[in-house]
Amino acid sequence: MLQGKILVAQGGGPTAVINQSMVGVVLDARRHETVTGVYGALHGVNGILNENFIDLSKESESNLERVGATPCSALGSTRDKPDVEYCRKIFNVLQAHQIGTFFYIGGNDSSDALRILAVEAAKANYPLRCIHIPKTIDNDLMVNDHTPGYPSAAKFVASAFAGIDQDNRALPGVYVGVVMGRHAGFLTAAAAGGRRHDDDGPHLIYLPERVFSMTSFLADVKRVNARLGRCVVAVSEGIHDANGTPIVTTLTKDVEKDAHGNIQLSGTGALADLLTASIKKNTDISRVRGDTFGYLQRSFLGCVSDVDQQEARDVGIRAVQFAASEDRDGSVTLNRVNTLAGDYGVEYRLDALDDIAGKTKIMSDDMIDASGTDITPAFMSYLTPLLGTNAPAAYRLQAPNVPKVLAG
Amino acid sequence: MLQGKILVAQGGGPTAVINQSMVGVVLDARRHETVTGVYGALHGVNGILNENFIDLSKESESNLERVGATPCSALGSTRDKPDVEYCRKIFNVLQAHQIGTFFYIGGNDSSDALRILAVEAAKANYPLRCIHIPKTIDNDLMVNDHTPGYPSAAKFVASAFAGIDQDNRALPGVYVGVVMGRHAGFLTAAAAGGRRHDDDGPHLIYLPERVFSMTSFLADVKRVNARLGRCVVAVSEGIHDANGTPIVTTLTKDVEKDAHGNIQLSGTGALADLLTASIKKNTDISRVRGDTFGYLQRSFLGCVSDVDQQEARDVGIRAVQFAASEDRDGSVTLNRVNTLAGDYGVEYRLDALDDIAGKTKIMSDDMIDASGTDITPAFMSYLTPLLGTNAPAAYRLQAPNVPKVLAG
Repeated sequence: MLQGKILVAQGGGPTAVINQSMVGVVLDARRHETVTGVYGALHGVNGILNENFIDLSKESESNLERVGATPCSALGSTRDKPDVEYCRKIFNVLQAHQIGTFFYIGGNDSSDALRILAVEAAKANYPLRCIHIPKTIDNDLMVNDHTPGYPSAAKFVASAFAGIDQDNRALPGVYVGVVMGRHAGFLTAAAAGGRRHDDDGPHLIYLPERVFSMTSFLADVKRVNARLGRCVVAVSEGIHDANGTPIVTTLTKDVEKDAHGNIQLSGTGALADLLTASIKKNTDISRVRGDTFGYLQRSFLGCVSDVDQQEARDVGIRAVQFAASEDRDGSVTLNRVNTLAGDYGVEYRLDALDDIAGKTKIMSDDMIDASGTDITPAFMSYLTPLLGTNAPAAYRLQAPNVPKVLAG
Repeated sequence: MLQGKILVAQGGGPTAVINQSMVGVVLDARRHETVTGVYGALHGVNGILNENFIDLSKESESNLERVGATPCSALGSTRDKPDVEYCRKIFNVLQAHQIGTFFYIGGNDSSDALRILAVEAAKANYPLRCIHIPKTIDNDLMVNDHTPGYPSAAKFVASAFAGIDQDNRALPGVYVGVVMGRHAGFLTAAAAGGRRHDDDGPHLIYLPERVFSMTSFLADVKRVNARLGRCVVAVSEGIHDANGTPIVTTLTKDVEKDAHGNIQLSGTGALADLLTASIKKNTDISRVRGDTFGYLQRSFLGCVSDVDQQEARDVGIRAVQFAASEDRDGSVTLNRVNTLAGDYGVEYRLDALDDIAGKTKIMSDDMIDASGTDITPAFMSYLTPLLGTNAPAAYRLQAPNVPKVLAG
């Protein structure tokens, strides 16, 4: 049952479609007569703390649609993680503004912030409904088949590697591309999304679900390069040794941590440079290049999966519908179903916050090849429908060789 | 006058539309009755040297169209720079295969290779027509208003920064994005292509046309960050000190050089990491991130300017038409003209190889702001029509702030 004002906010790393979910909440909430106002908090829970609200009931539908199609958190984001003291201040602000329901769009950390908030609200007897709306390019939320934001980021990574593979074919050598994903390899695995032929890259994929060994890595690269005369490698930023120590920290002494205690992995080219330097030092391969895909993966304007865009809008709409029809906190989840035609479909549920908050889903074993350096057909079946229409496809010439006249 | 077989090849760094030019040559050459065959050399002049040809008369038009829409050099590329000995071997091969006209699609270095080839062919009395077809994401070919490949790479860079700016607005801090371009800043300047509002990033743009000073850079970043609470910076990989020494070499001792003597600037995150480390060390700004856009700029699948795509096809077609109607070597150039309606148009000419080969065009002074850290409206007028339809556009919420109830 929706009553009072509703509040929507965005937390954690932006995605290409997180604004679709916000727009879904706003447009659907404005349809409910019992809703007395639609506020947006700027920069997540931090905006509540500081009473930084905007009045989204005064936003035109046409502008909302344009913002919905724009990547990244239009309301601003935060890495703040509320403790008890933080929560008390928040309730004070929510009460002053007569907010009844809080929709928080975010990933692991944001859902955990919401869980803490819900627990403290209950303890304090403060009447607040908390609804979590999933989003993360990491695709690592429990219960969910996948999370809004992932399909578009996956399309970016698949498109990047499909192009890089053509580039590498034109000017052969070894190429290492480092992809985001601290604990879950879903986004790195999407590097395979544009492969069409047996010799298409990436030829090697290193996921955080497997222990990384520099010795094996160098042997793998040498083997592929000997076979194809080139080698394209996709590496997760989160690769680690048997002790769980990130490989990037073997280079960098001064590691930066965020409020959640996470080591900074993105925003630096250190891991790609470390890996390419190691290849140059330990092999006789002359052309070795490395790129770190960085923030482009989650923010690039113009690379969106249409399936993702639609689902991101739907989770926002469904969040309002669940809040209107069910008197409980929860997290909206995406569950894959087969349609009557046998193809891809999703249905939405409201699951308990405890089942999602602060937990991390990683790739299942059946998605990872026994070699540990590739994905399986099961992963491709999982990924392909998410990329939507206009998925990346690179084509090659098929013309026959001309017989040599001079040389044999 | 076209006679015998024609040969097409691709040299230098791939682009998103270089295959359009190749397809333009192939399809138009196949229409000429005097042409006895249409060959493609694999990996540029190196493919001629090694007699590696494919028979493009046996390629279906539908597959050629698919390949045309695929980024990167479908024929493969090379960095080889022929000398006299190399040329003699080439003539030997061309003679054995009865090649009359050679179309070489490439940039500075490829056009210079073609110039040398043409000079040596004349000296050796070898009847070879050499036609250069322009392509480079660097946009640094003399005579040309712009070069095929640049508009699509510019669209990628503009789209990336439009997204990055939204990301940085959501989670404020300093962001440094390093863009390709050794001597010419055109591609880095395109970072401004998606700006819509006064406070949109990039807020600072560092071009190789201006001397880079670390002291000024740090002062610039601090000033912008103090004003906006964030700062997005676009930096050319080719920035250098007053002596012309690339800034990246102040970090790296072991620099790699290619066959043309160029220091390796791409395929490493060193420059972005150097700049972000310097900001972290010399300011009290806590969140500093850096990305190197790398090979994605020239190969990304799915980010193409439709104007670029059309022009790249046209230069290939025009090359064959010039070869058929004029009995001279040359380079096809793009020249901007205003249409009768007053808007953007191009016309093509066949100019002398000597006017283009081995020379480098850089940004003119009227394109660069007096501050040295921004571009001018004149540059925007130059850039905007090249981005084509569906140019990047990011939208923001316009809703009013809610008056604070608790805080003043």
